[in-house]
Amino acid sequence: MSFVLKAFQDRENTWRELFHEQMPEMEFHNWPEYGDPEQVEYVALWKPEADLATRFPNLKLVFSLGAGVDQFDLSTLPDHVGLVRMIEPGLTQGMIEYVVAFVLSAHRDLPLYAQQQRGQVWRTWPERQAAQTRVGIMGLGTLGVPCAQAIANLGFPTLGWNRSPRDIDGVQVFHGADTLDAFLAQTDILVCLLPLTDETRGMFNRTLFAKLPAGATLINAGRGPQVVGEDLIEALDSGHLKWAILDVTDPEPLPESDPLWDHPQVVITPHIASNTRPDTGVASIIANIRRHRSGQPPEGLVDRSKRY
Amino acid sequence: MSFVLKAFQDRENTWRELFHEQMPEMEFHNWPEYGDPEQVEYVALWKPEADLATRFPNLKLVFSLGAGVDQFDLSTLPDHVGLVRMIEPGLTQGMIEYVVAFVLSAHRDLPLYAQQQRGQVWRTWPERQAAQTRVGIMGLGTLGVPCAQAIANLGFPTLGWNRSPRDIDGVQVFHGADTLDAFLAQTDILVCLLPLTDETRGMFNRTLFAKLPAGATLINAGRGPQVVGEDLIEALDSGHLKWAILDVTDPEPLPESDPLWDHPQVVITPHIASNTRPDTGVASIIANIRRHRSGQPPEGLVDRSKRY
Repeated sequence: MSFVLKAFQDRENTWRELFHEQMPEMEFHNWPEYGDPEQVEYVALWKPEADLATRFPNLKLVFSLGAGVDQFDLSTLPDHVGLVRMIEPGLTQGMIEYVVAFVLSAHRDLPLYAQQQRGQVWRTWPERQAAQTRVGIMGLGTLGVPCAQAIANLGFPTLGWNRSPRDIDGVQVFHGADTLDAFLAQTDILVCLLPLTDETRGMFNRTLFAKLPAGATLINAGRGPQVVGEDLIEALDSGHLKWAILDVTDPEPLPESDPLWDHPQVVITPHIASNTRPDTGVASIIANIRRHRSGQPPEGLVDRSKRY
Repeated sequence: MSFVLKAFQDRENTWRELFHEQMPEMEFHNWPEYGDPEQVEYVALWKPEADLATRFPNLKLVFSLGAGVDQFDLSTLPDHVGLVRMIEPGLTQGMIEYVVAFVLSAHRDLPLYAQQQRGQVWRTWPERQAAQTRVGIMGLGTLGVPCAQAIANLGFPTLGWNRSPRDIDGVQVFHGADTLDAFLAQTDILVCLLPLTDETRGMFNRTLFAKLPAGATLINAGRGPQVVGEDLIEALDSGHLKWAILDVTDPEPLPESDPLWDHPQVVITPHIASNTRPDTGVASIIANIRRHRSGQPPEGLVDRSKRY
């Protein structure tokens, strides 16, 4: 029985040590080294390899190192191999920090004050009150629910939209496609935490932006291909949208020639909102391996029909 | 009996309407108009007039439109005239928003990512965890206590320092001058919400900065003259301090020639952290006038020995 890590940051040794401490019986390999391929039952990676299932005939679970699994082609994984999204408290904490920071930044027009600083301009602008700034979170999973709660705790009227129903204290939840327009009409700061699927690809386009109130802000911490860049720039230029804060782009890295980089109403961060932490990430994977070995389904197992 | 408002923003008419609704028996004037000076018992203003007490012989209370009263020369106010700091929920909410936004910004190095965006650089940096970023709030009054609580709620180890003792759930409170060094040694992000007094003028200087851990951040939402600008720039240039976020400067507006404007580790906002809101500000003043008329001390009455 062995575990192969294909790390996407320079954390291989931390992972090895943590694994050795917490599951010494597991043989640990760092890709591209993997020992006897017949022994490999578990693999964790961010950018997948197409031939995992043929290379490792006894593969049981593939762990994504991120919250999303859109980078995987499910057709390359036979049905008996489970794909598992990362659910771990470090990833959640990072996303709460990012969403709270940028909801406040948009609410208080901090990008405008940053621009003024570069021109040495000392000028104040009228303020909105939190009670009058409605924040809507799209995607109420393990990241979205605690983000919505943190925003509501700060005094913002908080809405949520999700494919299936949710019950969150202090958050008005809309669910299903029929309610989307009503949700958008009441959302001044829209936070996308949706998974990338066929339904969400290109979802943030001209039509959707037009349904938001004038002066709205888009924060995308979901996936880059969910946003139609040209439509976004048009909505910003017309003044219908005030700010766009993008942690994800299409492609990544964002090419130097992309007009989003220089747009005065756009804030770009390089996919930093939330990263798996080695300590809590390893603990999550090991707990899932133990669940799997005792016949339980792992937490975060991807539903192949929903693709998340 | 009359009330004179000397507004510092274009909100006179809102104030007049709110006053008329909530205290119709009070004659309301907008400075420089004030009717019969003998009738004037209450004045609210930001920038004081030196001759208030002689101009209005029956003056009873002077209300500061801000949380601080350092702009007043107490020697020009006879002992029978009370000076009242502004305590109102809008001011508190604004400060919570500002402190949370910039603690997260420093913690996640958002000013660095903003610089990268201007150079079209897509690059990530190692992250600290909230549990390893200790936030210390100096000044635990009506603004500091809820700010400390909001920071603690986000998972940061939170410390507070105050002249007198405080008991705040989840916050380690230090009080008195003897404990200052111990507090500073454990503070990675230092938030100043202190009033400007003889003791706090120039307090944030080379000596104090040296007591902070390497890589610390200063957020000043107190008063500009508390920070020695040259010492701050020296501490930033040496790398001992990582970021300085200044909502207040000395003087205000910050002159165009000031090197703080252009410093790559400095964020300047033009005294926007927290402003009195007309609705809740009027309600606070009217409640204090009613208290005063029924023989109770107003909330926020300045202690002349402490000067806040």
